[in-house]
Amino acid sequence: MFDYDTISWNDGRVLLIDQTRLPNDLVALAISDYRAIVRAIQTMQVRGAPAIGLAAAFGVVLAVWRLDEVDRAGFIETANTAIDEIKKSRPTAKNTFWALEQMRRVLSKNLNLPLREVKQALLQEAQRLLNEDVERCKRIGRFGAELLPNRAFVLTHCNAGALATGGYGTALGVLRSARESGKKVQVYACETRPLLQGARLTAFELLEDEFDVTLITDSMAALVMREQKVNAVIVGADRIAANGDVANKIGTYSLAVLAHHHEIPFYVAAPSSTFDVDLPDGSAIPIEERNADEVRSFGQQLIAPADVQVYNPAFDVTPHRLISALITENGVLLPPFDRAIADKIKS
Amino acid sequence: MFDYDTISWNDGRVLLIDQTRLPNDLVALAISDYRAIVRAIQTMQVRGAPAIGLAAAFGVVLAVWRLDEVDRAGFIETANTAIDEIKKSRPTAKNTFWALEQMRRVLSKNLNLPLREVKQALLQEAQRLLNEDVERCKRIGRFGAELLPNRAFVLTHCNAGALATGGYGTALGVLRSARESGKKVQVYACETRPLLQGARLTAFELLEDEFDVTLITDSMAALVMREQKVNAVIVGADRIAANGDVANKIGTYSLAVLAHHHEIPFYVAAPSSTFDVDLPDGSAIPIEERNADEVRSFGQQLIAPADVQVYNPAFDVTPHRLISALITENGVLLPPFDRAIADKIKS
Repeated sequence: MFDYDTISWNDGRVLLIDQTRLPNDLVALAISDYRAIVRAIQTMQVRGAPAIGLAAAFGVVLAVWRLDEVDRAGFIETANTAIDEIKKSRPTAKNTFWALEQMRRVLSKNLNLPLREVKQALLQEAQRLLNEDVERCKRIGRFGAELLPNRAFVLTHCNAGALATGGYGTALGVLRSARESGKKVQVYACETRPLLQGARLTAFELLEDEFDVTLITDSMAALVMREQKVNAVIVGADRIAANGDVANKIGTYSLAVLAHHHEIPFYVAAPSSTFDVDLPDGSAIPIEERNADEVRSFGQQLIAPADVQVYNPAFDVTPHRLISALITENGVLLPPFDRAIADKIKS
Repeated sequence: MFDYDTISWNDGRVLLIDQTRLPNDLVALAISDYRAIVRAIQTMQVRGAPAIGLAAAFGVVLAVWRLDEVDRAGFIETANTAIDEIKKSRPTAKNTFWALEQMRRVLSKNLNLPLREVKQALLQEAQRLLNEDVERCKRIGRFGAELLPNRAFVLTHCNAGALATGGYGTALGVLRSARESGKKVQVYACETRPLLQGARLTAFELLEDEFDVTLITDSMAALVMREQKVNAVIVGADRIAANGDVANKIGTYSLAVLAHHHEIPFYVAAPSSTFDVDLPDGSAIPIEERNADEVRSFGQQLIAPADVQVYNPAFDVTPHRLISALITENGVLLPPFDRAIADKIKS
């Protein structure tokens, strides 16, 4: 069973599994400074939209945790500065902004209390978000499991598992729930270049959980579909617009086109905090471009000419027309997504 | 300018650029034993269907080069054994078998000559195949260049360049020829996991040749197409069936589906020696499955759990319906391919 805490609070410190070191080393970072949370998000020591949101929330707790409990103005300023800095860590995932809004709301609501109690209120909120995230994943899992056939052969991309959330996972939560309900589940995991979250994280997480998992390169997905080795694709999401367009890890759009061509259902599993209902469609979702060396090298090893130009978008946007269903904790949303989202997701 | 000899003959030895060490080291292997040619093909120190064919031909020369010139029966047996062993080195590329047939034919035809002259005849044949390969690539290039717009933005996969042939290249030969004819050419190179021929070889070869080249991961091709960054896809081929189905490096089929979805022309450039007109369609093309560690690790670096299952087909088959044209030294073949192939390619 996979029972590692991706993120947890321990006596004034945030413990994060360092995901850049998996699968070779399973070590936790113990972080007591919110700026180290920002760095952990930027370097992808913690990644996955829901997990980033939780790290952001605990980052706000860290920012105030060691402050004296007398200077109220300084306390508020520090908290707001931290929220603003954490907000800028990565631009694409909606969950970060959502989680920071929850923290800002709790801060505002409790500002008249003694500062010691404000600290406790912020910590409680971060803990609540963490627990709620796991519960949401389990609800997503139960709803999603019903979509899968009794013998499910599922292709997934990147890591939308326990490591990407407070626990249990979104896309991988659906697989866990399907298995718990008695269905047979086999998984193909795309390695997910450039940072190999599929090879490093999903393969690790699913093997620990004793799933039947086969690793492929991203370029093999089309062949695997053509050979009828999979009957569903499930991925997570970083942001979902009001019309159902989905931003997710680079390569997701490719899989959606390929699944469409092969008439294989393409599912996106994500909590409601992923939805950005203020965006009419995916064209306005900011897409982070990351350092060229992520593509030019593999770990420490240079694999291409050092001076070759690189295009390295971290995400792509899958148009809603290629998506069969959005699986949320509020239920399965079916096309037309604009109406389903307006009904089931509160802004 | 790119003016390295991928393969050449020097005073009783075959010089091969060791393609496993590019782009970090540009070194040539000096090989005097045909068994080392077999190993170089299997380990992909030499790769690319036409280049493998040439290495195979020179391997036959090496097998007999140091034999005494008295024992005719021993000479013939050694030559035939070498041909049989080289034939088994890799199963997919047609050019190997074709080149070995040419060598077998020259051997048979000259068997009555003094053995010293048989050696020379075999060497001359291998040299002829090498020179002819370069000429064919240039003809492919000229035919293919006419298909490209004046401002060509071309996506390519793996390496179908000078490094994959006797020189000039097939897919990359088309780019060279287009540029020589005054067209503007920009290239997106897919890195081509697992062995990264795009990142290591195509990026290197095109940079040396001062092309404008941008490296992407294979998973980014769909986005690049959606963003209208490319207006053509050109790849090479390892074997082409009588109906136009094309076996090529894993990931090619994915690009063909994606190009079809985005209404971008998809071209395959290959010499006539790539065609296997005895195969009615691609379903009978043998697809090599390579070692799982190619996917689980990169170089010496393990990037996935050591015990995860892997699927590692080295090639896939693109159905002819997804192909806009086959570019050969005999001209551009258009659908219906079965008729065009019967007309232009002699069996």
